[in-house]
Amino acid sequence: MNDKELEKLRHSAAHLLAQAVKELYPTTLLTIGPATSEGFFYDFLPEVNFSIEDLPKIEKKMQEIVQKNLPLTHRQISKKEALKIFSDNKFKQELIENLPGDTVGLSEQGDFQDLCKGGHIESTGQLKYVKLLAISGAYWRADKTKDALQRISGTAFFTEKELKDYLKRKEEAAQYDHRKLGKELDLFSFHLEGPGFPFFHPKGKIILNLLINYLRNLQQEHGYKEIETPLILSDQLWRQSGHYQHYKNNMYFLAIDDAPYALKPMNCPGAFLFYNEKPHSYRELPLRLAEFGKVHRHELSGVLHGLMRVRAFTIDDAHLICTINQLEEEIQKTIHLTLKAYKDFGFESVKIGLSTKPENAMGSDEEWQKAEQALANALTNSGMDFVIQEGEGAFYGPKIEFKILDSMGREWQTGTIQVDFFLPERFDLTYIASSGQKERPVVVHRAIYGSLERFLGILLEHYKGKLPFWLAPVQIKVMTITDDQNEYAESILKKLKDHGLRADFEKNSDQISAKIKAAQLEKIPWMLVVGAKEQENNTVTLRYMDGKQEFGLLLDQVLVKAKNQSI
Amino acid sequence: MNDKELEKLRHSAAHLLAQAVKELYPTTLLTIGPATSEGFFYDFLPEVNFSIEDLPKIEKKMQEIVQKNLPLTHRQISKKEALKIFSDNKFKQELIENLPGDTVGLSEQGDFQDLCKGGHIESTGQLKYVKLLAISGAYWRADKTKDALQRISGTAFFTEKELKDYLKRKEEAAQYDHRKLGKELDLFSFHLEGPGFPFFHPKGKIILNLLINYLRNLQQEHGYKEIETPLILSDQLWRQSGHYQHYKNNMYFLAIDDAPYALKPMNCPGAFLFYNEKPHSYRELPLRLAEFGKVHRHELSGVLHGLMRVRAFTIDDAHLICTINQLEEEIQKTIHLTLKAYKDFGFESVKIGLSTKPENAMGSDEEWQKAEQALANALTNSGMDFVIQEGEGAFYGPKIEFKILDSMGREWQTGTIQVDFFLPERFDLTYIASSGQKERPVVVHRAIYGSLERFLGILLEHYKGKLPFWLAPVQIKVMTITDDQNEYAESILKKLKDHGLRADFEKNSDQISAKIKAAQLEKIPWMLVVGAKEQENNTVTLRYMDGKQEFGLLLDQVLVKAKNQSI
Repeated sequence: MNDKELEKLRHSAAHLLAQAVKELYPTTLLTIGPATSEGFFYDFLPEVNFSIEDLPKIEKKMQEIVQKNLPLTHRQISKKEALKIFSDNKFKQELIENLPGDTVGLSEQGDFQDLCKGGHIESTGQLKYVKLLAISGAYWRADKTKDALQRISGTAFFTEKELKDYLKRKEEAAQYDHRKLGKELDLFSFHLEGPGFPFFHPKGKIILNLLINYLRNLQQEHGYKEIETPLILSDQLWRQSGHYQHYKNNMYFLAIDDAPYALKPMNCPGAFLFYNEKPHSYRELPLRLAEFGKVHRHELSGVLHGLMRVRAFTIDDAHLICTINQLEEEIQKTIHLTLKAYKDFGFESVKIGLSTKPENAMGSDEEWQKAEQALANALTNSGMDFVIQEGEGAFYGPKIEFKILDSMGREWQTGTIQVDFFLPERFDLTYIASSGQKERPVVVHRAIYGSLERFLGILLEHYKGKLPFWLAPVQIKVMTITDDQNEYAESILKKLKDHGLRADFEKNSDQISAKIKAAQLEKIPWMLVVGAKEQENNTVTLRYMDGKQEFGLLLDQVLVKAKNQSI
Repeated sequence: MNDKELEKLRHSAAHLLAQAVKELYPTTLLTIGPATSEGFFYDFLPEVNFSIEDLPKIEKKMQEIVQKNLPLTHRQISKKEALKIFSDNKFKQELIENLPGDTVGLSEQGDFQDLCKGGHIESTGQLKYVKLLAISGAYWRADKTKDALQRISGTAFFTEKELKDYLKRKEEAAQYDHRKLGKELDLFSFHLEGPGFPFFHPKGKIILNLLINYLRNLQQEHGYKEIETPLILSDQLWRQSGHYQHYKNNMYFLAIDDAPYALKPMNCPGAFLFYNEKPHSYRELPLRLAEFGKVHRHELSGVLHGLMRVRAFTIDDAHLICTINQLEEEIQKTIHLTLKAYKDFGFESVKIGLSTKPENAMGSDEEWQKAEQALANALTNSGMDFVIQEGEGAFYGPKIEFKILDSMGREWQTGTIQVDFFLPERFDLTYIASSGQKERPVVVHRAIYGSLERFLGILLEHYKGKLPFWLAPVQIKVMTITDDQNEYAESILKKLKDHGLRADFEKNSDQISAKIKAAQLEKIPWMLVVGAKEQENNTVTLRYMDGKQEFGLLLDQVLVKAKNQSI
């Protein structure tokens, strides 16, 4: 069974949900109900709002329809006919009117009909392993000026085992929700005074700084140059880049001396102003411009979700400015860098998609072909499997998308490598070729983490809070059996710190068992326990988070072990 | 001669300027004319605007008045009388009306009269060494909604030598203006799309990162914890902090979901929200919260000045939250840290001012006395000379101001240590004392660089672009006599980089003299020159920026020398 089949199953599950709702609450207006990577949802406009208590009832009705094993059929009908069928539903009417062509798809199961482009299973009997999970708010066309809808979401699988595994994983995921871990480990918080804007506590800030330092060093080794561009730039610039036209609902605007400005939602225009500061020669290319750029993007308050969805975040942005002939090599290097980084962070399993030319793309077919070929070749030469996401590229160029798999089997879209023909035109980027002629470079937008804040959230969930030694805010906790060893412990602490280790020594007089428990709750990778014997022999006991211990180690041995943990 | 005498001289020079302008252009309205740390200025509203060509004529007239050696007198007159004398001058009228008390000061020299609180030299004959320097725009009461004025500025000294030295230094300073150096060394730029918002180029960003890393390490050694708070926070918070009431003209506002928010002009409120996230015990104090916080503050476009005066900058902010009894020790530690940092950056000479209780201060006399005593004791115990700046503290607490002296004898106000009784009240900061009672902590606001961007500007001017080895964006340039040594040079480059040195190798085939010249222009501290002989002996020639050379060094010797340069 592949992803396409699962998508069909889940899309059909959405229809099943809609049918059940319609049978129970006939006046409810249906809108849309797609499959998602986690399951499916359907957005409704009910006469009376649903509550979480209604879900079992709806599920029961769904199972009744499953029992009937109704066949699912699909056919094309004229728009006129469709408008008649859905004459009492303004949402479907709007959808029908906006669809291209003269006909639209209609799916049917029993006496239930829905507007649908197709892609279903055979009959409702295949939908035994369906589970409703949540009710949330949504807006028609995700536009808060339009109707407020209710979204019921659920999931569906082909087998009972898959469904059970999923629900177990979901429960586990809830237990290791990064928002919960962030609080327990004192890493970050949110406050009413800045909704969607994270506050990083000292330990969270240490991890953020580690993420920056790790990538800064890696990028430096690989010939990147780091720049810093302003957070506020003129409205005019955002019109030039097209962000104003396409993205203004997600941007924050302000006035300076009565002229309009915006907080940057992306770092590209700033980088291009820097590039255009002076003329460039082909000898300088490829130019790899990196920026840890803080961007602000408006999100509806309802979709804010811990560090995963915020209104301000830091992109590990880079713009690779190169000639079309350098493109393939640049992309290949970027793939390697990206995969190395994921591996270092413990993500060995990565899925890759290549999104190709959509309709209404800009740029010539030849350019697109060259760029898509460059991306595909780079992936193939790197020995990577990938799926072609036909027509899913941006209008300005094709892209590679990286999805990392976490320890709970979930996929997270993180990195992208995006070829861009558009902005080099818009910003009139040029270089002087060896011929002496002005030429237009290609730009590759690239991010590995994507958002540093979100990547931190992913790391927390992936490791269930137990960050590896090199990423732990406190790596080592020194603890004494009795206060008699405090002086010895202080001398150990000093040496650890002198070696650049993030170590701590809690000077309270608790029982050693209580100290160990506290360090475990803090998820500190290593404890160095010292008692009278250790002090006498000038050694320590190294105790790992999982309880394993190594006795009688010299501090130098600990330092070597610590060094071996570094990336 | 002390600063007070010089201030009198310069204040008198402003009167002299006003008298000369009035004699030459009788319809000109006079406003105010204070002494400054560099000289003096006077703001005029002339009937016809002055131009730079008018200055020699005005200077000539000033010297005529000097020749007359008019005595300067000063007396108190009633406001009524003053309003009559200045009946044709709306500015003076406004000043008179706003002055406290029933009388105002009047200064006279010959038939020239000016409103003045006093503090002059004896007679105009003492003003021989006066020089006018510039004309610029200003606004009445620095408010751009009020009259646009013309500011003539100049300087004055007691001796010809002092004046000549000053003018020479000024010329030198212009030559090493950081804006000029920033362009020559490719460190930063400004663009119309972001007026007052610096763009940092790769080499400039390296230096900024070095400033951050240097202080981050130092702070970590000294028990600071680093946090990160959002750039945007609610309007309500800025009302709570009082920034809205006192500072709103310098703040940028925006709307999120129709509610008012502001870009942070200071980092304090964010830090306090973090502090108030959970209860604190006296055991946690002193809590030293650091943040490299990017703030946005509006400045009039006319006063923007390279990196010295911008609209967005990074404060190396810290908030020391402590008990009143810990205050003195905290301040003493902060003084040491500050002076150590200045010394590491090559600023050995530092002037310190202690600003004390102003009128209308908040907090009890006892608190003020304790705080001022703590600051004074800390300075004395650190063996520091300081001047008391009577009544110049902020209304919410006394402060220490650091002024560093640069290589051209100029003073730069950089660091501050500010005691604050006010915001702990406003934000209801508390800790649980050992008694179990809730107590109010004291907050010390502290910055060492002040603004990182401005400090970078000061460093550039101080070093005239020749940054010391540890701060240079490129520390070492490897160069070959002929291309035959290129491979050897590459191996050297690799080793330098492996040792964390910022090294470069220009692979062009220019003459060695041209390569040396280019590296000198780039102000690169060390060149490693390799020719056939060096390659044969596996050595290098180390050439310093000033032309001194050391021949036949092994690379290991160079590495040791480089290590000795680190701070």
